[in-house]
Amino acid sequence: MLSLLDTVVNQRVRELRRYSLKAARTGVKLNQNENPWGTPLEIKQETFRRLGHHAWSRYPDFSPQRLHKRLAEFSGWQPGGIIAGNGSNELIQALLMVTVREGKRVLITEPTFALYRQITTVLGGEVASVPLKSDLQFDVSALLEEIEEKQPDVTIICSPNNPTGCVISDEDLAALLKASQGLVVVDEAYHEFADRSAVPLLSEHENLVVLRTFSKAMAMAALRVGYLLASPELVVEITKAVLPYNLNAFSQTAAEVAIEMFEATLRPLVNAICGERDRLYAALATIPGLVPIESYANFMVVRSAIGPKRVFDGLLERDILIRDVSDYPMLSDYFRVSVGTPQENDLLIEALREILKSA
Amino acid sequence: MLSLLDTVVNQRVRELRRYSLKAARTGVKLNQNENPWGTPLEIKQETFRRLGHHAWSRYPDFSPQRLHKRLAEFSGWQPGGIIAGNGSNELIQALLMVTVREGKRVLITEPTFALYRQITTVLGGEVASVPLKSDLQFDVSALLEEIEEKQPDVTIICSPNNPTGCVISDEDLAALLKASQGLVVVDEAYHEFADRSAVPLLSEHENLVVLRTFSKAMAMAALRVGYLLASPELVVEITKAVLPYNLNAFSQTAAEVAIEMFEATLRPLVNAICGERDRLYAALATIPGLVPIESYANFMVVRSAIGPKRVFDGLLERDILIRDVSDYPMLSDYFRVSVGTPQENDLLIEALREILKSA
Repeated sequence: MLSLLDTVVNQRVRELRRYSLKAARTGVKLNQNENPWGTPLEIKQETFRRLGHHAWSRYPDFSPQRLHKRLAEFSGWQPGGIIAGNGSNELIQALLMVTVREGKRVLITEPTFALYRQITTVLGGEVASVPLKSDLQFDVSALLEEIEEKQPDVTIICSPNNPTGCVISDEDLAALLKASQGLVVVDEAYHEFADRSAVPLLSEHENLVVLRTFSKAMAMAALRVGYLLASPELVVEITKAVLPYNLNAFSQTAAEVAIEMFEATLRPLVNAICGERDRLYAALATIPGLVPIESYANFMVVRSAIGPKRVFDGLLERDILIRDVSDYPMLSDYFRVSVGTPQENDLLIEALREILKSA
Repeated sequence: MLSLLDTVVNQRVRELRRYSLKAARTGVKLNQNENPWGTPLEIKQETFRRLGHHAWSRYPDFSPQRLHKRLAEFSGWQPGGIIAGNGSNELIQALLMVTVREGKRVLITEPTFALYRQITTVLGGEVASVPLKSDLQFDVSALLEEIEEKQPDVTIICSPNNPTGCVISDEDLAALLKASQGLVVVDEAYHEFADRSAVPLLSEHENLVVLRTFSKAMAMAALRVGYLLASPELVVEITKAVLPYNLNAFSQTAAEVAIEMFEATLRPLVNAICGERDRLYAALATIPGLVPIESYANFMVVRSAIGPKRVFDGLLERDILIRDVSDYPMLSDYFRVSVGTPQENDLLIEALREILKSA
C-alpha cells in the first residue's frame, strides 16, 4: 500500500497534515464565529415554501444566474463579475486552481485562515508569508516590500482577519493593488461586522478579487454558500475550475431569500452582535490576566496570563466551547472567542472571571 | 486586462473552453439522465421533518461521519474508505488534485463524460484516450496495452459509460487493475440500472477507486451528493484535497433518508426505469432510420439516418429535450435520450416516428 501511495499521490500531498477540527457539542458554542441568533424564522419558512414543489430529482442551474443577479444588486457589482459557490472555500480553491502551479507564489499574512496555505500546497505552489506586527495589525509596509520585490502571483488578505480581527484600510489596499502585478484577494467573510468593503474598489482595479460568505452574518453556515466578485474577464477564467452544478438548489433558494429579507431580519442581528462585541471587549478588559484585542469581526482574540489550553479546558468544563488558536504563529498566549448572544456572553464572562481568579 | 490574464492565469486554463450546457425548459426533459419519477414524497416529507429544527446558522459536520456510516452499510464497504461530496464531480476533482500535476498522465476512454478531461487539463496533467470499438463497447485489449506500455497514473472507466451505456465486466476490470501500477477509477454513476458494481473488488485491489452519485437512480440531482469508495489509506490522502464542510446539512439529511427508504421507495422506480428502457429500445428499433444501441443505464444513444441536430430541433419543437452528442468523438451520427416515464417515452417514440417519416 505504501508504495502505491508514494507512486500515485503527489509528494507534497503525502507530506501535508489534514486540516481538521474536532467536533464537540456544548451548550454555548463560541468556536466558529457563527451567527449566534440562528437563521430568522421568516427566512426558513419562506425557503421551505419555495422548495415545497421543487423537483429534487432535476439538476440545479448549471450556474445559478438568478442568484448571481440578486448578489449583484446586494453587493453593488455586476452579475457577470460574480460566481456563487459551495461556500467561499470552493471559490478560493477554484481561483488558486487556475493561477497556481509549481513555481508560482502565493503571499499571505500570518496568522490567518489556514485554508489558503493548505490549498496552495496541494496545488504545488509556494507560500510566502508576512507576519502581523506585534500589535496584531497588518504590516502594510512589509507587504508592499514583499510584493514589489517578489511579485507574488496571488496575494491574499483576510479583512477582517481571521483569527485576529484586524482590517486593512482602503488606502493601504489600494497601495497593494497598485504595487502588485498579480491578483490581490480580499477575503471579506466578516465584512458586515466591520461595515466596510473592498467592492467599491473593483471598478478601478482589475487585479482585485473579493470573497464573501453566507456562513457568518447571513446565518447560513449549514447551507454552504459563498461568492466571489472580480472583473468579468477574470470570472470567465476562474469559472473554468468551478464544477458544474456546484451549488445545490436548496442553498440557492435559501440564499435568495436571505438577500431579500436581509434588511428586515438579518441587519438587526448584525447590529446586535456588534453591540455585544463592544460590551464583551469592555468586560474582558476588566478581568485581571486577560487582554482582549480590538476586533472588527464577530470574534476576538484574547491574550491570557495563564495558558490558553487551560482556559479552553476550564470553559469546556463549564459547557462553553471556544477556539484554541495557540498553535497559530504569534498566538501562543491567546485564545479566540466568538461573540454570542447576551446570555452566552454573560456566561462566558462569568466563567472566565472564575477561571482566571482560581489560577 | 489581457496582459493581466496572461500573467496570472495558467496558460492551459486560458486555452480551455468552458464546459457548459444551455438551459432549456421543456415539458418532457430527457437530456440529463435524471430519475423521471421525481423524489418520492415520503423522502421529501421525512427530510423536511428532520430539518425543521435544524440550526441553519451552525456549520455542518466537518466531514459527515453519520452519512459515511450509512453509505458503508448501503454499499457494503467500510466507513473509513468512504468520502461523501458535493456531487461526485467534487470527488473526481479531489482525486485528481492529489494525483495529477504536470507530467502526470490520465487515461480515459472516448467518448465519455467530459469532466475527466476538463479537470485533468486544469491541473496540468496529460490526457491519453482509447476509443471505444466501432460497436461502441470498451476496447479492453487496447486499454490493457496502453496501461502496460505507458503506465498512466490514473485510468478512469465510466461504467455504465456516459453517453454510450456500455459496461466493463468484472473479469476485464480485474485485468486492468492487475496491469496497472496507478489508480483505476470506476465511475458508477449509473450502476443501479446495470445491477452490477465494482465495490466487491475493492477488498482485493488497493488501486481501485469507485465513484457513485445520488443524482440518477437516487433522484436527488438538485441536492448534489456523491461518494467515493477506496482503501482507507487512499481516502486519507484524497481527503486532503476535499474542502472542510463540503456537504451542506440539508443534502446530508436528504441522502440519509434516501438510503433508509431506498428499498421501499426508490428500488421500484429503478425497476420501472429498466423496464421502460427495454420497451423504448424495442420501439426505437422499429423506426426506419434509427438504430438504438443497447445500454445498461437509464439512457441510450441512437444512430440516426438523418442529422442528429435535425432530430434534436424536431423534438424541441414538440417540447421534448434530448441531448445532442454529435460533437463527441465517434458519435457524429447519434443522439442521446434519457429513459422517461411511460407517458414521456410514448411521446418521444411518437415524435421520432413523425420526424423520421417526414425526413
